[in-house]
Amino acid sequence: MCCLETTKARLAAEKASLEARYAAFQTRGLSLNMARGIPAKEQLDLSLDMLTCLQTVEDCQIDGIDARNYGGVDGLPSAKKLFGELLDVDPDCVIVGGNSSLNMMSDMIMRSKLFGIGGCKPWVEQGTVKFLCPVPGYDRHFLICEQCGIEMIPLPVTSTGPDMDLVRELVTDPAVKGMWCIPKYSNPSGITYSDDTVRALASLKPAAPDFRIYWDNAYCIHDVFCEDKLLNIVTEAKKAGNENLVFEFASTSKLCFPGAGVACMVAGKGDIDYIKKLISAQTIGPDKMNQLRHIRYFKDVAGLRARAAAHGKLIRPKFEAVLKTLDAELSGLDFVDWSKPNGGYFISLNVMEQTAKRTVELAKNAGVTLTPAGATWPYRKDPADKNIRIAPSYPSLESITLAAELLCVCVKLAAIEKLGL
Amino acid sequence: MCCLETTKARLAAEKASLEARYAAFQTRGLSLNMARGIPAKEQLDLSLDMLTCLQTVEDCQIDGIDARNYGGVDGLPSAKKLFGELLDVDPDCVIVGGNSSLNMMSDMIMRSKLFGIGGCKPWVEQGTVKFLCPVPGYDRHFLICEQCGIEMIPLPVTSTGPDMDLVRELVTDPAVKGMWCIPKYSNPSGITYSDDTVRALASLKPAAPDFRIYWDNAYCIHDVFCEDKLLNIVTEAKKAGNENLVFEFASTSKLCFPGAGVACMVAGKGDIDYIKKLISAQTIGPDKMNQLRHIRYFKDVAGLRARAAAHGKLIRPKFEAVLKTLDAELSGLDFVDWSKPNGGYFISLNVMEQTAKRTVELAKNAGVTLTPAGATWPYRKDPADKNIRIAPSYPSLESITLAAELLCVCVKLAAIEKLGL
Repeated sequence: MCCLETTKARLAAEKASLEARYAAFQTRGLSLNMARGIPAKEQLDLSLDMLTCLQTVEDCQIDGIDARNYGGVDGLPSAKKLFGELLDVDPDCVIVGGNSSLNMMSDMIMRSKLFGIGGCKPWVEQGTVKFLCPVPGYDRHFLICEQCGIEMIPLPVTSTGPDMDLVRELVTDPAVKGMWCIPKYSNPSGITYSDDTVRALASLKPAAPDFRIYWDNAYCIHDVFCEDKLLNIVTEAKKAGNENLVFEFASTSKLCFPGAGVACMVAGKGDIDYIKKLISAQTIGPDKMNQLRHIRYFKDVAGLRARAAAHGKLIRPKFEAVLKTLDAELSGLDFVDWSKPNGGYFISLNVMEQTAKRTVELAKNAGVTLTPAGATWPYRKDPADKNIRIAPSYPSLESITLAAELLCVCVKLAAIEKLGL
Repeated sequence: MCCLETTKARLAAEKASLEARYAAFQTRGLSLNMARGIPAKEQLDLSLDMLTCLQTVEDCQIDGIDARNYGGVDGLPSAKKLFGELLDVDPDCVIVGGNSSLNMMSDMIMRSKLFGIGGCKPWVEQGTVKFLCPVPGYDRHFLICEQCGIEMIPLPVTSTGPDMDLVRELVTDPAVKGMWCIPKYSNPSGITYSDDTVRALASLKPAAPDFRIYWDNAYCIHDVFCEDKLLNIVTEAKKAGNENLVFEFASTSKLCFPGAGVACMVAGKGDIDYIKKLISAQTIGPDKMNQLRHIRYFKDVAGLRARAAAHGKLIRPKFEAVLKTLDAELSGLDFVDWSKPNGGYFISLNVMEQTAKRTVELAKNAGVTLTPAGATWPYRKDPADKNIRIAPSYPSLESITLAAELLCVCVKLAAIEKLGL
């Protein structure tokens, strides 16, 4: 009893102290946004010379093509080569598109729904369609599924990737047609799939012949601290006799201008011609001039990698500031944990169960916008209400340090509130 | 009998003369393409300065937005304003997208199929869906329908537009969900819809509440000889209480770089928010940098119009060469007629019935590629096999003159063959 009283008294004191700190933050009139993985201005400035790398008529000629004119549904051959090298895949299996890889993913799902894939009937004629959704995951993947009426099955993720025993069991259901993966520096958990996980995924034998892994390799070269190695799933799938199992996606959005990058997708030899035929009825072709801008400016994969490293260098201090603050404020609290990723754009923070929403609300009321709690789960419903995605890239280092401190105060305040003290 | 013999003899002589001319063409080893409405190199060169109109960080700022970064599913506000002025519509009803208006059309049809439009059930749940297709028309419109399993109803077109009595009758069928229109300098007939036609379309009362007119205003300012006036269907539809009847599309593809233009669509107030919501799950946003390039370079609608006029000046001699040759070679033949459009990209040639395919084949065998006969009809089937689309923009003036002469020889040869002489 005496011990409990002491604890209560200590917590009351702690609460008072936190409330005082919170009130001090409120008076500062902060207005910061850590909601999305948006590159900062300094990152955009790295690529300014890309704007003027095409100037003359000669600059616009490539592969025997005048890139200014119509044509080429699957992109410039040189762009296919560049992305083929980046992802270590056959350029003939690459389609280079417009500025949005998300759009390419959404288009593939809409095509699968309306026209079918792998020689199967369109999904709209197949009844319920389900996707496996590693959680926490990327809200925009889940939003595509939600809009398309695709049932989402949340899938726990460990430090090596999704629980593969569960995956193997779930894909015995022929209604399971797809699985989202961000295999490297996952959004938001920051993990990179282990070789075993990649091999297990590559050798899946799903009941549905039109099951595809949506391999969103958004952060393929986006190291921040050091480089995680990711096994090439396209090669592994081929070895396993699963040539058409994977759709891989990537883009340069976070290597130059996020609104004006170039996106690509990779598919198996059986799928790629079919997809190109579908695309050729949907558009006359992507913006080849922007593809050419990338080719002339970055030159090769080494150019892309060097630029990725430069971005990483700008992002690193922001990650360090957040991680240092989390360490200083939250270490020792056994109900809290967070990721320490080697790259990507996010830190994933798990707070006390049933307090994530409240934490985000408290932060908001003091001027810091975080990704809405729940966003990292299908239907925006995190059953434990504990996951918060931190996106440290956009604000200044000074702001991010302040915001992280405020966030920690809110995490602890929400926890104390939850304890009813 | 004597008269018939004379005719026969005259035709035999004519045939021999044509065959000699044809043989002479064959020995020249021509290799010309008049298949598609592709701008020529000189046209592309007009816009070279657009490539370098964005250079500094300051150049990239507009509307309080850094155009380099993510966001803005419906395009830059200034881009919406520019297209709003071009088409004389409310900028709030404009969505500015990527480089392909065809892609925006295809996307709208796919969205209508999967998600529905106008509060109605998705088309995939409504059984047969039909579109009205003015003929001759644009092959790529028809290809979208074909791919999407939409039944196409060919619709005769007069010099003032589609037969509106027939349209009014056909839209009493609730399965009729759409109608393709290229209302100005139509592809390929070159006609511009009369004010009466536009008003009749704008005041249609289709049985299907999710019927929409796909108003592909591809050649809105693309005059070649003089300017046809087209009534504003968006205004007229509003007056008629049909605010959500029309989806209008346009692009700058034929004003700067065909592969790297900017496309837009216009929809009614009821539809536009719904469409934006759907798009916001499909992409993070279009390439705003290319939109900004357009804004900085063209400045305003006057800039767009001036450039359209410059293109028209380059195209005009090519149209004149074709028309002059058609006049010299084919006038007086009562089974042949052709369009004399004031603008756009095409001349529509009607040859003797059941000889278009053969004419195109003959031309091909002498080195001139034309749009495949039948392409201007749904399912590539011109029942009379008589329509040929001529696209004079791409080859040089010298080539186009030669190609037109060869075409005329082929038209006459195919006719004589058909007569069995």
